[in-house]
Amino acid sequence: MEFQSCFPVWDRLSADQQSRILDNLVFREIKKGTVIHNGSADCTGLLLVKSGQLRAYILSDEGREITIYRLFDRDICLFSASCMLRSAQFDITIEAEKDTGLWVIPAEVYRSIMEQSAPLSNYTNEVMAARFSEVMWLVEQVMWKSMDKRVAAFLLEEAAIEKTDRLSITHETIANHLGTHREVVTRMLRYLQGEGMVRLSRGTVELLDAKKLTALRDT
Amino acid sequence: MEFQSCFPVWDRLSADQQSRILDNLVFREIKKGTVIHNGSADCTGLLLVKSGQLRAYILSDEGREITIYRLFDRDICLFSASCMLRSAQFDITIEAEKDTGLWVIPAEVYRSIMEQSAPLSNYTNEVMAARFSEVMWLVEQVMWKSMDKRVAAFLLEEAAIEKTDRLSITHETIANHLGTHREVVTRMLRYLQGEGMVRLSRGTVELLDAKKLTALRDT
Repeated sequence: MEFQSCFPVWDRLSADQQSRILDNLVFREIKKGTVIHNGSADCTGLLLVKSGQLRAYILSDEGREITIYRLFDRDICLFSASCMLRSAQFDITIEAEKDTGLWVIPAEVYRSIMEQSAPLSNYTNEVMAARFSEVMWLVEQVMWKSMDKRVAAFLLEEAAIEKTDRLSITHETIANHLGTHREVVTRMLRYLQGEGMVRLSRGTVELLDAKKLTALRDT
Repeated sequence: MEFQSCFPVWDRLSADQQSRILDNLVFREIKKGTVIHNGSADCTGLLLVKSGQLRAYILSDEGREITIYRLFDRDICLFSASCMLRSAQFDITIEAEKDTGLWVIPAEVYRSIMEQSAPLSNYTNEVMAARFSEVMWLVEQVMWKSMDKRVAAFLLEEAAIEKTDRLSITHETIANHLGTHREVVTRMLRYLQGEGMVRLSRGTVELLDAKKLTALRDT
């Protein structure tokens, strides 16, 4: 799978623009757990995921985390190049959740092409609107949904991503996704276990009743 | 003040693009309290505020509100035309907080010019990045800040907007901005009054100690 076939508006760029991207493109292999972009300290560049999984999250002053969105094969990470958008005033941290192969387009190269290219700029608009939608979903979750529903939603999402009902995940990790404390997650999981929806054992959460979890999530 | 002088990239559009906008432009006078855009039901178009004040908020299934951002003179409202962005999957309601005069550019006209014009598309990117920053700020507030700090931040913001320390505002309205219940706001305001930071009377909140409120907000 080549870069060109993963990059959506490739065919709508000029030959000159294409070669400027290819001349500056870097492919990187990232180990699971590596932080590849650290808030406003970095301007890593645009990331295009070839394969793997990234997590974008924010950190509180006390070191608490909450996941903002996740990126999968062929997804573009824009905010690792947020320095190219004057109006982007926020710090996102990006970490590899799995071993990940990705292409990096330096922010300056992307920005200079985007300034000239309506197709690339419109594509960037769509990417940003997609991320905006995810953040709005998050706001709704955090504002209106109780933690039991949010844990149910997270477990169902995770099972879909991992294609298994037996998740190897700690309560701490779930808490960091949801922006809460480990103790809260443990309490919620025990409640779900009491209701027969999950089975807990050391380092794993097994989904026993996806239908009931879905009903809880959607109420 | 004419439309042309308020619209940032006007000079970078072609004569044809300019006349397509002017031919389709509508000026509207909106009364305070009017809902001018109602979630996904509408595709009102791009709004450019000439003078006045708009509030963008989301609604829970139970009718609770939380303010996402506010718009003032010369601000652009993009998400009242979110139908033109395929990837924008969220419902925002927009209401006039004051009597407001604004220009409406039909979404279809804006979209078709944006598709051709890198300057307009790049400008749209900057507007979206600015809104994204506001939503990220909101996520941080909601996740990491206690309600006393959020009430303090809101009162200081409101005093800056209204250019007065004596705010005519109900506890219900503050609750709808912050996405909480009136009772919670009342409790917080009474706490702030006990600390000598505000004085409460029927329908008004008076800021007595902006310095102490600022210190509370920023801790």
